Amino acid sequence: MNRNRQLVVQKFGGSSLATEDLLRNVAERVCERREQGVDIVVCVSAMGDTTDELLGLANRLSGDRSPSPRETDALISTGELVSASLMGIAIRGLGHDAISLSGRQAGIRTDETFGSARIASIDPARVLRELERGRIVVVAGFQGLTLADDTTTLGRGASDLTAVAISASINADLCEIYTDVDGIFTADPRLVPNAEVISHIGYEEMLEMASLGAKMNPRSIEMAAVHKVPMLITSTFNRDAKGTKINNFQDQGTDMEIQRSITSVVTERSVARVTLHGIEDRPGIAASIMTPLADAGISVDVIVQNVSSNGLTDMSFTVGQEYLQRVAEITSVNEDVGYTELGTRDGLAKVSIVGTGMTNSPGYAARMFRALANAGVNIEMITTSEIRITCIVEQDQLAAAAKAIHSEFELETV
Amino acid sequence: MNRNRQLVVQKFGGSSLATEDLLRNVAERVCERREQGVDIVVCVSAMGDTTDELLGLANRLSGDRSPSPRETDALISTGELVSASLMGIAIRGLGHDAISLSGRQAGIRTDETFGSARIASIDPARVLRELERGRIVVVAGFQGLTLADDTTTLGRGASDLTAVAISASINADLCEIYTDVDGIFTADPRLVPNAEVISHIGYEEMLEMASLGAKMNPRSIEMAAVHKVPMLITSTFNRDAKGTKINNFQDQGTDMEIQRSITSVVTERSVARVTLHGIEDRPGIAASIMTPLADAGISVDVIVQNVSSNGLTDMSFTVGQEYLQRVAEITSVNEDVGYTELGTRDGLAKVSIVGTGMTNSPGYAARMFRALANAGVNIEMITTSEIRITCIVEQDQLAAAAKAIHSEFELETV
Repeated sequence: MNRNRQLVVQKFGGSSLATEDLLRNVAERVCERREQGVDIVVCVSAMGDTTDELLGLANRLSGDRSPSPRETDALISTGELVSASLMGIAIRGLGHDAISLSGRQAGIRTDETFGSARIASIDPARVLRELERGRIVVVAGFQGLTLADDTTTLGRGASDLTAVAISASINADLCEIYTDVDGIFTADPRLVPNAEVISHIGYEEMLEMASLGAKMNPRSIEMAAVHKVPMLITSTFNRDAKGTKINNFQDQGTDMEIQRSITSVVTERSVARVTLHGIEDRPGIAASIMTPLADAGISVDVIVQNVSSNGLTDMSFTVGQEYLQRVAEITSVNEDVGYTELGTRDGLAKVSIVGTGMTNSPGYAARMFRALANAGVNIEMITTSEIRITCIVEQDQLAAAAKAIHSEFELETV
Repeated sequence: MNRNRQLVVQKFGGSSLATEDLLRNVAERVCERREQGVDIVVCVSAMGDTTDELLGLANRLSGDRSPSPRETDALISTGELVSASLMGIAIRGLGHDAISLSGRQAGIRTDETFGSARIASIDPARVLRELERGRIVVVAGFQGLTLADDTTTLGRGASDLTAVAISASINADLCEIYTDVDGIFTADPRLVPNAEVISHIGYEEMLEMASLGAKMNPRSIEMAAVHKVPMLITSTFNRDAKGTKINNFQDQGTDMEIQRSITSVVTERSVARVTLHGIEDRPGIAASIMTPLADAGISVDVIVQNVSSNGLTDMSFTVGQEYLQRVAEITSVNEDVGYTELGTRDGLAKVSIVGTGMTNSPGYAARMFRALANAGVNIEMITTSEIRITCIVEQDQLAAAAKAIHSEFELETV
């Protein structure tokens, strides 16, 4: 491998590889890039809905039990092996030398948490050796191997994580994530028609956005931040897309010195709220409420607790609307928690602003709330972090809310 | 593992696993056997036509080139990984502990001949460890790993080979091969309606029959013979089938002391003959004819060369009818071979008798030829081995030929 050449990791997701023709199209893009004199590692997900289809089979065959996580990982990891070897074959068919590697062959070692294993280490020796032989290296995403020699998977959407981890291990110049959108937008273009693709964004902001539902794997952003892997989120299908670059702000050059204070408006439909009235205001009460939900695999989002009076208080929290009924069931039989009334409310949505520019700068919350008020949007709940302000609003007011905030912070003028 | 218990390897082919329901049915049979107190290793092929479908994809994606054998093996070996993990899941769903292992995890190491690799060694440590833990071990057939850490496949139909090799490595008491027929028949029941399942057969006879087209992988019989692995060929679908036991005759007990001299009639439809008239009778001429055919992957079967006159001779050989045109093309442009005339003839078939009983016992050939003559069947070519006599006959006389021979040697009275 000639390290005067650029070294790029390109990751393609399942929707970019859903059919034979799409896979061939991706192979062509990889080869075009190669012909520009770039060394390339391609990281692939399973084709289309392969993973879900295999999971369906596993569930049907396992009878009343859940399929064993170890066996499930052995099963679903084959989806990426198929797309990796087919990609190797397609690239070779276009006249370039290529080799496919399983996660194991790419040196990815994980812990034993089948289904959502964490990467313990990467030995990049084989990947580097194949690059040195002038080959395009295709790595099966989403998988690794335990010390006990069993195949693991890294969790849904974790092919991004494989791409970032490989990038870090071989010190790649760029990790490109190809998706079905042109990049990260200032707002959901379906809600805010004049939303724009953000050209640069910092890891922290991207992490907030990923955890707010932007289609990125938060663990991969975290790993990219830790290992300082520059990323580009761009489109498989639109060759004119410039994409969104994710890196540290100090790496973003002079044009970023005047930073936008707010980077984007992030929205999430289908939120529901649960309110427990008249609960005891004692240490551990929040844990008592949340633990059974966590055990059931339900993630709770915004949590708000009021000031108590007479030793009793109210607590509200939001969950994905699809979980509302189960949350109500689980909470109503929770003997560790006494309450006077359990209220539920669906048809809500979440709108947030994200931007490192708001750190230590007051006034953003006020501007956001006023913009919502002027648009006639009622705020149901509020929560904030260092670089984010989130409001829960009525679902049917979500578009109006997003547009009002987008306009207030002039995000259409990127 | 309690070695007072019986240890059995069970191999199920693709047609036994073609659908979800069939796979579940196989899992049930495995569990029933387990409940009889037997330790079990299950060896599986890919489900149904998976391998062919993956090969089709590979061919279409590789453009004008052939897909790389290494990438093809990486691709098609996933079929067995899928069926192995699904079998593990189905068995666990029925309440038994099971674990699936890839060929690599089962310790199978091969040479580097992608597409038809030879097993170099097996380290049974993991299989034995899992058996000792009381688990049913499911091994993905058809695959292994090279010393350079690449996945290989062992050739079409080679899941049998995996089963026999695993049996040898763990010293199994029996290697059961489950198929879509009740066992090995004295003749093809479609041609000879009163054909019977053979209860016992020796490795040598089975090897002759396998190379004559019986649906068994000759390499697996060879390996079973070398390592003295007793085998049972039986039916997945007919639970009443007793199957055919393959082992050494000395292991077959007193009832086999009066051995049948002839074990079976083996037939093969769709044979064609090529005759080269007036070729030079010199050393190397046969090699000159056969080498380009071998290079093209065409196997030549019966070869007959006449006594020469005037330094010229005739040579005839048979090939599968589907290869006739290519053989004629290849041979006609072969500059190493001069001939006066190239004749071809299709519409032929092959009928053989096999039996160790005929070793050193004259008269079997004469009885076979007379039976054919009495049935009005003309013999086109003859070839023999120590334990086999083969005649080439007209295709439309094949059934009559098989019936006549079957009756002559009283094979219906097993």
